[in-house]
Amino acid sequence: MHSPSSSEPSRPFLTWQRILDWATEHYRCRSFSKDERIPTRPGLLYLVQRGAVRLVGTAQISSSASQLMSRRANRTPEEAFLGFVGAGQPFEIVAQSPFTLQSYAHVDQTAVVWMYWHDLDNWPHFRREVLDAFRYQHQRKLLWLSALGQRRTIDRLLGFLTLLVEEYGEPSVSEEDPEVLRGYYLPFPLTHAQIGSAIGSTRVTVTRLMGKLRQKGLLINQGDNLICLPASSVNLLRS
Amino acid sequence: MHSPSSSEPSRPFLTWQRILDWATEHYRCRSFSKDERIPTRPGLLYLVQRGAVRLVGTAQISSSASQLMSRRANRTPEEAFLGFVGAGQPFEIVAQSPFTLQSYAHVDQTAVVWMYWHDLDNWPHFRREVLDAFRYQHQRKLLWLSALGQRRTIDRLLGFLTLLVEEYGEPSVSEEDPEVLRGYYLPFPLTHAQIGSAIGSTRVTVTRLMGKLRQKGLLINQGDNLICLPASSVNLLRS
Repeated sequence: MHSPSSSEPSRPFLTWQRILDWATEHYRCRSFSKDERIPTRPGLLYLVQRGAVRLVGTAQISSSASQLMSRRANRTPEEAFLGFVGAGQPFEIVAQSPFTLQSYAHVDQTAVVWMYWHDLDNWPHFRREVLDAFRYQHQRKLLWLSALGQRRTIDRLLGFLTLLVEEYGEPSVSEEDPEVLRGYYLPFPLTHAQIGSAIGSTRVTVTRLMGKLRQKGLLINQGDNLICLPASSVNLLRS
Repeated sequence: MHSPSSSEPSRPFLTWQRILDWATEHYRCRSFSKDERIPTRPGLLYLVQRGAVRLVGTAQISSSASQLMSRRANRTPEEAFLGFVGAGQPFEIVAQSPFTLQSYAHVDQTAVVWMYWHDLDNWPHFRREVLDAFRYQHQRKLLWLSALGQRRTIDRLLGFLTLLVEEYGEPSVSEEDPEVLRGYYLPFPLTHAQIGSAIGSTRVTVTRLMGKLRQKGLLINQGDNLICLPASSVNLLRS
């Protein structure tokens, strides 16, 4: 498995520290509170220093063109959850019709650093890592599209959750015996409405189908309403 | 709009020719007929020299775990259409559970060249272009995910078709008056089953909804069953 963060663990850390120093010195970093929008501009590169960023897409078109004006006034446009960008990972937002991409702090104290691409001329190795990270993210999105291509909503849901936990999961151990691995859980909260917006479904349907998955033992309970999958069904990417 | 192919039009062509010569010399190119599977290995980089490649994802998991064995035996696993890779564009396949990615020649005489990433050490500028192309493809997939997050299947369908035509569309002119631009059409055939597999729906539903879009004038007729959208609803990326 190609994982940009696993190659040469020592050097990236040094470079990373140097980049953070540079960003502080040039006022190119900022901290955001939970669900605060992170303003972005095309052509700029963003790095998540701490916390997690949530990418969201908004549709500008609708098949019900004639009702467009009246409906737009009455409802918020449909937002789709497009994934997380974790600490140490880069992201960029290239605005595009007919959809608009936006980024939000997913947890409190999410810190983001930004730069122009040409600023990376000073750190050619780091530029290479950033580009490799985008290669990796691209491959993950292809898998995500594979999940969303499935006809049954419950299959889309399970595929989607499995991919997220594979990428960001933390081990969940049994309360009685900390030696026993129950499974892996997603350390970020994710509402049923957000899950629905990712898989083309509704909050109500997601709640119902998650109950079904729980009954089948394909989803297990975890504190704080976090999502947890049994260890047998997850291949952690960072192992 | 960031478009890797539009920067410095002369040099890439020269590099491209040199790479093709190198590939021919090292037996690293091959031509495929329509729907033939293109064998790939993780760690290798592929470039489409001619024609178009279709990326497809296959699910290895199912929420109906208990019925898994019997159902697998009876049906082909669900394949999802994940997009095209056009001439001059790179692709790579990093196999992953719980989904498998595969590539097929989408049209006859699709020619593909392959190399190891370290082969690109000879062409650092070209490596940069390849990585930028993946950055671009990644952004397009985020838009695609935005389309698939919409609740109504007809909205997912229209968003999906609009994104494809934006990227690969060719102008379609009126038969009576070649000065009149009717719209933009997708130059590759795409079956309703393939469209359904991309948007989490079925062939039957896609056929019905495409009829609806045609009635509303959001989709127009084009010869050879090709997909055509009215000019007003498309912002061509290569203009």
